[in-house]
Formats: sequence, C-alpha cells, structure tokens
Amino acid sequence: MYLTNTGRSEPVTIAEIASQFEAPHNHLIKVVNRLGKLGLVVATRGRSGGVRLAVDPYRIKLGNVLRQLEGHTELINCAEPPCALRGSCRLKAALDEGMEAFYRAMDRFNLAEMVDTPTGEKIIRLHRQFLAARH
Amino acid sequence: MYLTNTGRSEPVTIAEIASQFEAPHNHLIKVVNRLGKLGLVVATRGRSGGVRLAVDPYRIKLGNVLRQLEGHTELINCAEPPCALRGSCRLKAALDEGMEAFYRAMDRFNLAEMVDTPTGEKIIRLHRQFLAARH
Repeated sequence: MYLTNTGRSEPVTIAEIASQFEAPHNHLIKVVNRLGKLGLVVATRGRSGGVRLAVDPYRIKLGNVLRQLEGHTELINCAEPPCALRGSCRLKAALDEGMEAFYRAMDRFNLAEMVDTPTGEKIIRLHRQFLAARH
Repeated sequence: MYLTNTGRSEPVTIAEIASQFEAPHNHLIKVVNRLGKLGLVVATRGRSGGVRLAVDPYRIKLGNVLRQLEGHTELINCAEPPCALRGSCRLKAALDEGMEAFYRAMDRFNLAEMVDTPTGEKIIRLHRQFLAARH
C-alpha cells in the first residue's frame, strides 16, 4: 500500500518503510526479496535506489498475494503433536474450504482500492512528514 | 468431534481426551469451561463424571462455534506497534470481510457432518483402544 503512492518520483527506501511502520530493517529486506520473487516489486540499488511496485496496483488481487505469501499456513496443526484423527479427519477439509472462501473474498479487492480515500491521503501525509523530518 | 461418539453410555473424561490428543490436562479444563459457558457441553463431577455435548451436533454450526471462540482474533495487529495507517486503513475492512466469508463458509458445516465416515469410525476405534489399554 505504501508503494502505491504515485505522488513521488523516487522509489521508496526500506529505511522509510522501517521508520513509518516501526518494522525491523532486516525483516523488511526479507519481505522485499519475497515480493520481488513474486514479481510484485522491483528493488534498485544506489543513491536514489529503493523499492517500487512492478505491477499496476489495479491488477494486484489481494487474495492472490495472500495465497502466495500465506498459502502454506494451515489453520490447524495436524502434525505437531501428531493428531490421532490425522488422515481420517473431516474437519481439515472443512477448514480448507473456509480458507478458500476467505481467499476468494479477498480476490474481490485489488491493491489500488486499498489506497482509496482515506488511506492514500494518509500515506501521502506520512511521506511528507518523513521528508520534512529528514531535512 | 470426540464427544459426538454416541456408541458410549458414559460421558468422556478429560483424562481420555488428554491421552488421545496429547493435550495438557489444564488446557483442556479451560477449553471445557469455555465450551460449557457457550452452552455446547455439560461437565459432570464424580466417579462416572465427564463431559458430554449439550446440543444436538446437527444443530452446531462450525462457523458459529469458531466465531464465538476466535471472533476477537484479528488477522493483523494494528495496535502493537501502533500502525501509522490505523484509523484510515482500507485493508482492515477488507480483511474483516474476508474473515466474515470464512465464517459463512464454515457455517455450511455442522458438527455431526464432521464425524461422518471416516472420522466417526476412527473416533470409535480410538475410544475402544483407550478402554482396552485401561483394563
């Protein structure tokens, strides 16, 4: 969402995202690498380097992104400790259907919609505050 | 699911559930108290005491149970550390809609269906093994 701010010419630095969201720099590097491998962002190095979206945000469906980032997350852990019902459990299939309904619902949203009013304006204000604090 | 086994006369002891699912006894006591408050199970004390379902399992919708047990769980933590977008965030509302779609999908299942073949038979076998090991 922060990268969808089109009112800026330079890509967003990891330092800026870390500062805005109090997120550890090292964690953000991993997130950016992951999103880069999915083809969603492009990172450039150097003095005016940073991260930018690689895809039109109207074409990024939230369900798709979540599926790719979290798709291997299970709602219940059948393996540890090994569940006595494992392999003969109808609940597992029901929960998988529920998860699929969640992803389908999230696919109705695209990234561009997530920065409609008031979110987009808030992001622009945050960016201006960051620039002002730096100078 | 374990309590839906109708091929038994006595209620299920917490000791039996703890043994079958390698779950800590103290944790199960909390779960049973919680389910009791929701009116889903009844616990009785004494020599032949234990836990049994308080409601026809055909009338227990999974979405309803999950909503009551997990309904206050948020998919993202906006509060800690406080998110810079908090209060102006469209993603939060989108995720809430996704969660609601999940609960609606889970409401299409009832507890009785969860112990259709092969789960119910597996539970009966587990119970017999438990009785055999005890004698």
